[in-house]
Amino acid sequence: MSTVHTSKPKPFVLYTAGTPNGRKVSVFLEELRAVYGEKVDYDVQKINISRNDQKEPWFIKLNPNGRIPVLVDRAREDFVVFETAAILLYLEQHYDPERKLGFDPVSQPNEYSEMLHWMFWAHGGVGPMQGQANHFNRFAPEDIPYAKKRYILETKRLYGVMEIRLTDRDYLAGPGRGVYSAADINVFPWINVHQFAGIESLDEWPSLEMWLGRINARKAVQDGLAIP
Amino acid sequence: MSTVHTSKPKPFVLYTAGTPNGRKVSVFLEELRAVYGEKVDYDVQKINISRNDQKEPWFIKLNPNGRIPVLVDRAREDFVVFETAAILLYLEQHYDPERKLGFDPVSQPNEYSEMLHWMFWAHGGVGPMQGQANHFNRFAPEDIPYAKKRYILETKRLYGVMEIRLTDRDYLAGPGRGVYSAADINVFPWINVHQFAGIESLDEWPSLEMWLGRINARKAVQDGLAIP
Repeated sequence: MSTVHTSKPKPFVLYTAGTPNGRKVSVFLEELRAVYGEKVDYDVQKINISRNDQKEPWFIKLNPNGRIPVLVDRAREDFVVFETAAILLYLEQHYDPERKLGFDPVSQPNEYSEMLHWMFWAHGGVGPMQGQANHFNRFAPEDIPYAKKRYILETKRLYGVMEIRLTDRDYLAGPGRGVYSAADINVFPWINVHQFAGIESLDEWPSLEMWLGRINARKAVQDGLAIP
Repeated sequence: MSTVHTSKPKPFVLYTAGTPNGRKVSVFLEELRAVYGEKVDYDVQKINISRNDQKEPWFIKLNPNGRIPVLVDRAREDFVVFETAAILLYLEQHYDPERKLGFDPVSQPNEYSEMLHWMFWAHGGVGPMQGQANHFNRFAPEDIPYAKKRYILETKRLYGVMEIRLTDRDYLAGPGRGVYSAADINVFPWINVHQFAGIESLDEWPSLEMWLGRINARKAVQDGLAIP
């Protein structure tokens, strides 16, 4: 007689790559796993973005935008979620009943709204602008000083906005000094790679630098940064 | 004896300017007014962005990012909301009990999630990238063909993503052919000014063009576009 091992499939599949956008979701999932364990475990499908796997027809069927990360929720009939911040809010709504990483929209409407505005702020600002700084400082085939400067300055301006917000707070949203939430995780992986974009240090923004250290000290964050 | 007119203050103050981002909110408010009347009426405070009023200390206190639009909700203790998409979701949560312009997160979780991912998609894609196309094609002090082309092509790619989504649908989110919602209003004012960015016509994206016509035909949309 042989022992039969029936392995239950993990609840999620995460299609991702080692970029700031990919890491927003793996950090969030690792934080959830630290609280809820295997209920929020996930398979990782690494996407080779330098080979443009994310532009293949099978991927475009998942996400017409052709970008990582994408989350497929096996537990909810393979529901597909894309756009990093939308994935975090999806996980928060369905898989964080204790609201460890967010706020309840009904009982904490103002904190929830604050979290949303910082999430959209990062999603429309830090991500795309720091991404352009990366492009012109690292990847562009032409040397274009005007564009290099434009996006470095805009990224620095945005860091300055976080500095204003964090001067008397530990985290972006929530009462008092704030509570660690999806608002922080949503922007952290971008701030964490400031040097890649050409911003040598965070000395100009001491509160932002302390916030970064606070988040980097979390085990789940380090686990999430190691994926894929 | 004189008649005393006591005029009740309107529920909201909208700080705005005549830009696509400003118009997202005025269109949404006009759609709400068409359903709920004076309960969602608002004062308009026009911000002179060419004079940089939005960088003044009094404005930075409202929004540390120094950008329009900002909504102040007098009915909820002057609660301040910024970031266009966050404002739409705030209004949707608190002031659209019949869910005429969105989906209920609890009873329609998948439609709600779809709406969010299209909102983040536009907020991180069409807005910032078409904004860069405007910059390099209209405002930049140097003529930089590489950057002009980069952002026009990226804006066109994003229009192509909407075309894929809208090929068999009338609206971005919702069951069947979709339902007009915050997901549409959030991106409409950008698509509506495609010519300004240097995209002469929408001929390449017939479903997108029909979607644009459908939205432009709404009276509330025309009222919202006229503000401020």
